[in-house]
Amino acid sequence: MRKKGPCIAVIGGDNRQGYLADALAQDGMEVMVVGLEKFPGLHNTRFVSDAVEAVEEADVMILPMPVSHDGVTVNAPYSYAVIYLSDLVAAASPEQLILGGKFDRALADELAGQGLHAIDYLEREELAIRNAVPTAEGALAIAINETKVTLFGSKCLVIGYGRLGKVLAADLKALGAQVTVSARKQSDLAWILAGGCRPVQTAEIYEGLPDYDLIFNTVPALVLGRKELQKCRPETVVIDLASSPGGLDYTAGQQLGLKCIQALSLPGKTAPASAAVIIKDTILNIIREETI
Amino acid sequence: MRKKGPCIAVIGGDNRQGYLADALAQDGMEVMVVGLEKFPGLHNTRFVSDAVEAVEEADVMILPMPVSHDGVTVNAPYSYAVIYLSDLVAAASPEQLILGGKFDRALADELAGQGLHAIDYLEREELAIRNAVPTAEGALAIAINETKVTLFGSKCLVIGYGRLGKVLAADLKALGAQVTVSARKQSDLAWILAGGCRPVQTAEIYEGLPDYDLIFNTVPALVLGRKELQKCRPETVVIDLASSPGGLDYTAGQQLGLKCIQALSLPGKTAPASAAVIIKDTILNIIREETI
Amino acid sequence: MRKKGPCIAVIGGDNRQGYLADALAQDGMEVMVVGLEKFPGLHNTRFVSDAVEAVEEADVMILPMPVSHDGVTVNAPYSYAVIYLSDLVAAASPEQLILGGKFDRALADELAGQGLHAIDYLEREELAIRNAVPTAEGALAIAINETKVTLFGSKCLVIGYGRLGKVLAADLKALGAQVTVSARKQSDLAWILAGGCRPVQTAEIYEGLPDYDLIFNTVPALVLGRKELQKCRPETVVIDLASSPGGLDYTAGQQLGLKCIQALSLPGKTAPASAAVIIKDTILNIIREETI
Amino acid sequence: MRKKGPCIAVIGGDNRQGYLADALAQDGMEVMVVGLEKFPGLHNTRFVSDAVEAVEEADVMILPMPVSHDGVTVNAPYSYAVIYLSDLVAAASPEQLILGGKFDRALADELAGQGLHAIDYLEREELAIRNAVPTAEGALAIAINETKVTLFGSKCLVIGYGRLGKVLAADLKALGAQVTVSARKQSDLAWILAGGCRPVQTAEIYEGLPDYDLIFNTVPALVLGRKELQKCRPETVVIDLASSPGGLDYTAGQQLGLKCIQALSLPGKTAPASAAVIIKDTILNIIREETI
Repeated sequence: MRKKGPCIAVIGGDNRQGYLADALAQDGMEVMVVGLEKFPGLHNTRFVSDAVEAVEEADVMILPMPVSHDGVTVNAPYSYAVIYLSDLVAAASPEQLILGGKFDRALADELAGQGLHAIDYLEREELAIRNAVPTAEGALAIAINETKVTLFGSKCLVIGYGRLGKVLAADLKALGAQVTVSARKQSDLAWILAGGCRPVQTAEIYEGLPDYDLIFNTVPALVLGRKELQKCRPETVVIDLASSPGGLDYTAGQQLGLKCIQALSLPGKTAPASAAVIIKDTILNIIREETI
Repeated sequence: MRKKGPCIAVIGGDNRQGYLADALAQDGMEVMVVGLEKFPGLHNTRFVSDAVEAVEEADVMILPMPVSHDGVTVNAPYSYAVIYLSDLVAAASPEQLILGGKFDRALADELAGQGLHAIDYLEREELAIRNAVPTAEGALAIAINETKVTLFGSKCLVIGYGRLGKVLAADLKALGAQVTVSARKQSDLAWILAGGCRPVQTAEIYEGLPDYDLIFNTVPALVLGRKELQKCRPETVVIDLASSPGGLDYTAGQQLGLKCIQALSLPGKTAPASAAVIIKDTILNIIREETI
Repeated sequence: MRKKGPCIAVIGGDNRQGYLADALAQDGMEVMVVGLEKFPGLHNTRFVSDAVEAVEEADVMILPMPVSHDGVTVNAPYSYAVIYLSDLVAAASPEQLILGGKFDRALADELAGQGLHAIDYLEREELAIRNAVPTAEGALAIAINETKVTLFGSKCLVIGYGRLGKVLAADLKALGAQVTVSARKQSDLAWILAGGCRPVQTAEIYEGLPDYDLIFNTVPALVLGRKELQKCRPETVVIDLASSPGGLDYTAGQQLGLKCIQALSLPGKTAPASAAVIIKDTILNIIREETI
Repeated sequence: MRKKGPCIAVIGGDNRQGYLADALAQDGMEVMVVGLEKFPGLHNTRFVSDAVEAVEEADVMILPMPVSHDGVTVNAPYSYAVIYLSDLVAAASPEQLILGGKFDRALADELAGQGLHAIDYLEREELAIRNAVPTAEGALAIAINETKVTLFGSKCLVIGYGRLGKVLAADLKALGAQVTVSARKQSDLAWILAGGCRPVQTAEIYEGLPDYDLIFNTVPALVLGRKELQKCRPETVVIDLASSPGGLDYTAGQQLGLKCIQALSLPGKTAPASAAVIIKDTILNIIREETI
């Protein structure tokens, strides 16, 4: 007998995928779990050893983030068995909803070619917004531990006022830092000001660089090259939150003796359970919109 | 020729004492440094190799925190030489001000017996208040790293509403946590409420214990015994900020599989430069009041 | 048949006393009401026309704030009849608890002489703390309406860091003002700093006076005399929150063309229902402690 | 001899236009003033009695907000003389920049037809964002004065999460209110959550309406019709911040005995000097971009 809502197969993934299965079950959904044998403490979910069987029974199939590292098997570090993408594709039907975090081009094409209905939840705006919270907290913890000063009273520069820049600047200010944020658009500069921070044009950050105890980069472009890093004080700590390759000249940073920290994938590292709830809420939004 | 203010001898200590010497010099004071040879990057201070010579010349002598570990020598991990307390006492004069963090009873008696004027800056209220800031930040970093959830939206209990409890509760709330604070006095409960947190009588925390993702103890008494820890959920993280022996039954915590973390001396660990500025400001207040 | 807790007679008072009777009844208490005929919309309370009868039946008698304006009758602007204090005193018994806001000396002596048990709830610390919230909000509304500038970005001075100073400074800062707070004790100055405001010694406010758009006085002493007011800019708005006679030289202020506003009894004016809840909570604390 | 930057003619308008002239002069600009004779206390500006003369000399002409009420004369309540739009148009040249707040269609067409270069600063995004700050403060003052409760602890609904909704929700939360915000897009709902408020779908506000002490509407559409107002408690206060005709059924509100307040043009009313600075900054952005 069905519990409320669709029957969901959670397949593969790391501990976030485990927390996700748990969170869906706690919401009262019917959840089958495949390839998460090493994740401890799943409650109210049904372990299914054969992925094909689970796929055939499910209304919704949730693949991990990223879906695959090699294009052949599902990314499933907590699984005892290897799960082949081709098996899942063969077993899936067009009525099902296939969700995953980052499908590579080849897989996306194959799914579309088979008439299957796949959606990448990483492309959802609300997920990106809410993920900014654990990312910002991870950045705070790094900043607290890696500097010789308190965030309270410190002078911070946040480069970029996208989702992460907004949340991080607000957190830093909330803890008593003096926060400058760089952006390009006048409307962003107005929002920065209204948020109680000091706005600066991205093109004009150079002169002020020696003022900062901490610099957080959120922009995926080489914003802090050798020239900029040279302008910083030696005790400045630079935390790069932009996705690889990041926004720093790390070679120059090392030669100059600056502490430059590349911080990636913070939500999964500092708050996997919350990251899973964020994915869950996003997935429920998708399911609602697709009105299965 | 004198620079502004008194001539200060900074003697021994760890990196905080080094940052302190630096901060005093940056304020334009005349600073002699003894026993900090291994601390890098002191500017505008005068290295003196002979402690006795420095003491004879100084108006103010600043000893480290704690002053001594053995009652015989100055606590001086960054020194190449051993510095004997008896040498300092013999060289000191009643016109001088002797400052330190925690004099043991024997030394305090000896100084008084010699008619010397010693003041323990750790007993100053303003230092304790301001030290709550780096301590709270250290606790935040631990909480971010040791839980599976974000502080944002998490349910936190802060036990005790003294200096640290006040600052920590405000920081947690500022980051979006749902904060409950326990206290005994009605007036404290009113302040907790006015600060946007949920107040609970310390005697009545038991029933609510399963609600919390995080529990911070700031009270130096056994508040969380076996019974209380048993009431917590297994994934609750307990951070004990009370000075040794702390406020937890650690044995029970371990047996119950709870993550219990004793966090001590956070200011020196997470923000030694800021901790030094706090000591410096306190010392300047003392000097001003003593009107040397 | 008794409902939960003691039987309470609410006697006289203005709309706050009406909201108080209502709030007590909403908490499930048995409430008799005397002398509030003109207050609209009381629910679940029992109107009693004869005060003596109500007193004889009650466990707790709640008199208004202030209890009396003339020492003879109860302060009862919402009553059709005059209620004599002497009647109440004659009808009361030593087992009862008599609560009121500000008993004058003569009445207090008379009650004590009769062996009656009277407590002034205005002397409770938790009430004073919580009353700071509506007072601060009232001050914010005045400041918003009486200045030509936004609180956001304005330069504010709060004189005094008692209960009201603490809450008001936090509110102003929360709305984006640049807040300076004056105090005398080093420990208060440290708290001001930790709260994200700029501390200044009360004795040293003079030089900075021309900087402020807004000055809030919370200290019941003549802090802003002619000399100080002369130092302010003509467009500065001064809001005096200290109880009469206040802390300003109003004559000088007028002559200098400064906008000086004396704001009194704000909780009853801007938030009578919340003010009543605060009194109710305080009264329930008193009743609990007196264990009737 | 020129001071820094272009020569600016400020023409007509109310006290905001006066503060604007003053603010431009304080920034060191060369400012001519026409038609502001009744505005007191202009410093470092040059009064010009003949508008045509001023226009001929100026690089930039700043018209008021709105430019005109009748399509014939400049909106100039502080002027002794009538200023005709046609005179200004005749005197203007294509090299000049003409700035104003709301040109009506006919005037805009005429200016374009003459080859003149006119820009409406009210259409600038950064102005609208920054104006949300004084508007929100005005709404706070109304809310404090018109309710029986404190904002602290009150339950507030903010309808709409545009510029004003964002700033107002943050202000309310900063003062301790429990804030629900309605929006339609999932991404807005995610931002509301990240901002510490409770998100609700605009289409789903109906059921929760009895919960609120205060409702702020920022959406220019009939969101609160008779049915919705009927669902509210009688003591709920509704503040309508949407531009005329607003978002309430005022007739129904009156019949139901609800306090419904239409609050318009708050920046000019509660903070004309700050509103002028906002216009000034916007105008300087325009001038910079147009690189005169």
